[in-house]
Amino acid sequence: MRLILAALAIGSGLAAPAQATDDVTSFTLENGLELVVIEDHRAPVVTHMIWYRTGAADETPGHSGIAHFFEHLMFQGTDDLAPGEFSNTVEAQGGNDNAFTSWDYTAYFQRVAADRLGLMMQMEAERMRDLILSEEDVATERQVIIEERSQRTDSNPGALLSEQMAAAQFLNHPYGRPIIGWMHEITALDRDDALAFYTANYAPNNAIVVVAGDVTPEDARALAETHYGPLQPSDAITPRLRPSEPPQLAERRIVLTDERVSEPYVIRSYLATERNPGDQRKAAALTLLAEVLGGNPTTSVFARELQFGQAVATWSAAFYDGTSVDADTFGVYIMPVPGVPLAKAEAAMDAVIDTFLAEGVDPEELDRIKTQVRASTIYARNDAGGLARLYGQALAVGLTVQDVQDWPDILQSVTEAEIMAAATEVFDRKRAVTGWLQAPEPAATTEEATE
Amino acid sequence: MRLILAALAIGSGLAAPAQATDDVTSFTLENGLELVVIEDHRAPVVTHMIWYRTGAADETPGHSGIAHFFEHLMFQGTDDLAPGEFSNTVEAQGGNDNAFTSWDYTAYFQRVAADRLGLMMQMEAERMRDLILSEEDVATERQVIIEERSQRTDSNPGALLSEQMAAAQFLNHPYGRPIIGWMHEITALDRDDALAFYTANYAPNNAIVVVAGDVTPEDARALAETHYGPLQPSDAITPRLRPSEPPQLAERRIVLTDERVSEPYVIRSYLATERNPGDQRKAAALTLLAEVLGGNPTTSVFARELQFGQAVATWSAAFYDGTSVDADTFGVYIMPVPGVPLAKAEAAMDAVIDTFLAEGVDPEELDRIKTQVRASTIYARNDAGGLARLYGQALAVGLTVQDVQDWPDILQSVTEAEIMAAATEVFDRKRAVTGWLQAPEPAATTEEATE
Repeated sequence: MRLILAALAIGSGLAAPAQATDDVTSFTLENGLELVVIEDHRAPVVTHMIWYRTGAADETPGHSGIAHFFEHLMFQGTDDLAPGEFSNTVEAQGGNDNAFTSWDYTAYFQRVAADRLGLMMQMEAERMRDLILSEEDVATERQVIIEERSQRTDSNPGALLSEQMAAAQFLNHPYGRPIIGWMHEITALDRDDALAFYTANYAPNNAIVVVAGDVTPEDARALAETHYGPLQPSDAITPRLRPSEPPQLAERRIVLTDERVSEPYVIRSYLATERNPGDQRKAAALTLLAEVLGGNPTTSVFARELQFGQAVATWSAAFYDGTSVDADTFGVYIMPVPGVPLAKAEAAMDAVIDTFLAEGVDPEELDRIKTQVRASTIYARNDAGGLARLYGQALAVGLTVQDVQDWPDILQSVTEAEIMAAATEVFDRKRAVTGWLQAPEPAATTEEATE
Repeated sequence: MRLILAALAIGSGLAAPAQATDDVTSFTLENGLELVVIEDHRAPVVTHMIWYRTGAADETPGHSGIAHFFEHLMFQGTDDLAPGEFSNTVEAQGGNDNAFTSWDYTAYFQRVAADRLGLMMQMEAERMRDLILSEEDVATERQVIIEERSQRTDSNPGALLSEQMAAAQFLNHPYGRPIIGWMHEITALDRDDALAFYTANYAPNNAIVVVAGDVTPEDARALAETHYGPLQPSDAITPRLRPSEPPQLAERRIVLTDERVSEPYVIRSYLATERNPGDQRKAAALTLLAEVLGGNPTTSVFARELQFGQAVATWSAAFYDGTSVDADTFGVYIMPVPGVPLAKAEAAMDAVIDTFLAEGVDPEELDRIKTQVRASTIYARNDAGGLARLYGQALAVGLTVQDVQDWPDILQSVTEAEIMAAATEVFDRKRAVTGWLQAPEPAATTEEATE
């Protein structure tokens, strides 16, 4: 589920710019702010994003949720902007804006008419260093987040299983912490926490600005110098060294039973390596492995075997993103047809994985998938906002513009042998968590019968 | 196993001083150092202990093992003591000394002739603030600890299972961290880590000195004023607020398979409340519950049912300590007779627990156990060193002298109903981790046959 959420938020690892000829320019201001400009003059709009290299995995233990909390607080006022004025201004200009938080980054974006780019930068620069937080703002927003957690997580058994699994997957690394935070820690977040987090992390030398759309690099740079250039860098920015995993020696298994479950399923996450600067081949192999096994809803190995062949599953999938600072997870998933027990569904999925490991990748299927990848690449180039996300996310986790531009070719060049080597390495049950989501056994009907 | 180790290190929760008439005096120096004096003039010896309120659960994430590492480093030199001189001096005086580290504390002790107490205090005070650490000392001692971990943990499948289970038991709290540290983090510990830890934690206002034996409170106080009195308190001592657990919603299960396993077993830990100042009844009920279920090797519920009745187990046990800063675990354990599968052994143990929950405590058995507790209390009073440990450990986790003295009466006054209420609360599989330790399936003998 972790990977499902990541995929929804960011798009799969497949979407990628085609080649080094994307009209991409990057440079760094003297205060350390990195900028990426993606030219696309087909329409008079721009997407303006700022990515801070800080997320849930960078929080102080015991203060989970502060990164996401801060994403909300950034819409409070500054000395020049009233609370809410940021979004109201964007809307008044016919644009839209939003923000999101992950384990590795917090990002804010606006899509507006191209001639409003300067205004966006002005406001974004303003709230990077001059945010004003009253006790009341903090208390109000905390209540909003408590509600958000209640609705999105606590009333969703699948989200709860996902949280408990992540906590069991990571023995030491903070990816085991929920992005939204543990409820008991959210309720304790206060203005001091928020200000400490802001001062430490919101600074030009901890951010990447991505501008995509109808703007030249020269104009973007001039605007950036004007608005972001005067901001003081922070001297508190340190390398992102998080506690790392010890050897994982034994599979963990979790059964979450909840009466709200209508569609039981089995989900398993395996610890999996991530994309690294200049070293993306293994991650590319895992990306293709996920596609081969469970990418396409009708032609993937899982779909053919589990949904159509044995007809034990109504849905099956494999997930991998890999765009993270540290090792994350590779996921597999099966939702059985009604009446098929979870144990049988899991065994069927494992048998398919075993057969796959023995028989290898079907070369025709791999060719088909690579063709799809190439197509999705071309499609991706049509969406400047999507490209902005790809570059921003990659740079926020420590990859380079060159890594982003190399990625499509690496995907195309991955061999069947590399995919099978990646599969053999990743499918290690000792480094896996297997989760069952199920409803309680139906109660005996005696009581109902007596009514 | 976590609880087995704790029990070995500290003695079970049952051992407790009898009453408020133990000859116990306590006072606090102006610099914040707490002292407890336990008079016992039967022999001309004293036990001198110092307990620092810092342990593995207080480490900075990513630097696991530093508390235990420091326990070793404290035997290095100061400006007045050469490396190793501390222990050599104790030995030359006919005494012995040692140290131990837990999640909540680090303690050092010496047992010497009573007239050497001043010398012990002088040396202990010396190394509290004046330790000298060379790069070489740190590197040498780190290698010692790497060896220690290799031998005690990495070559012991049971210890490895215990570690993996603790990491899965605690979703957020640092009790999931091994005391000795994760190997990859031990290897990275350096002199800067060590000095930072020392400066922050080794100070009179973060310590408790317990003196037990042939000394009067007046003499102990005078010596303490002389040797410890001049030490400067630290202003870095903060309340011990660790990240706490979110709701645990689903049992975690772990199977560790290792060819070195000769005696497979099932062990389960449940999250369990701890002793708290002025609030020890629930912990007392859990202490008696562990005794009733699995304390006595022949008469406990587990022994009668699993070892003698069904004869499925060669060994069974239940564990609880409860002397900790935060909620820890209650453990149950079964080692099946050869040939009985772990699944069958676990089911048998669970059936016994279910029957126990339905039928309640046998009043005669409880009386018998309370009599044993009373006896062990009297026995404990005979061992001044043991009493020093009880008081030191209790005060190190935030209990008071009064709590220690109340404990035996509370144990005696716990009712059957309280034990059953505690059992019903603690035996919640959602808050449990179940571990299986087993050897791999025997390999097919084909290859051997062809030799």
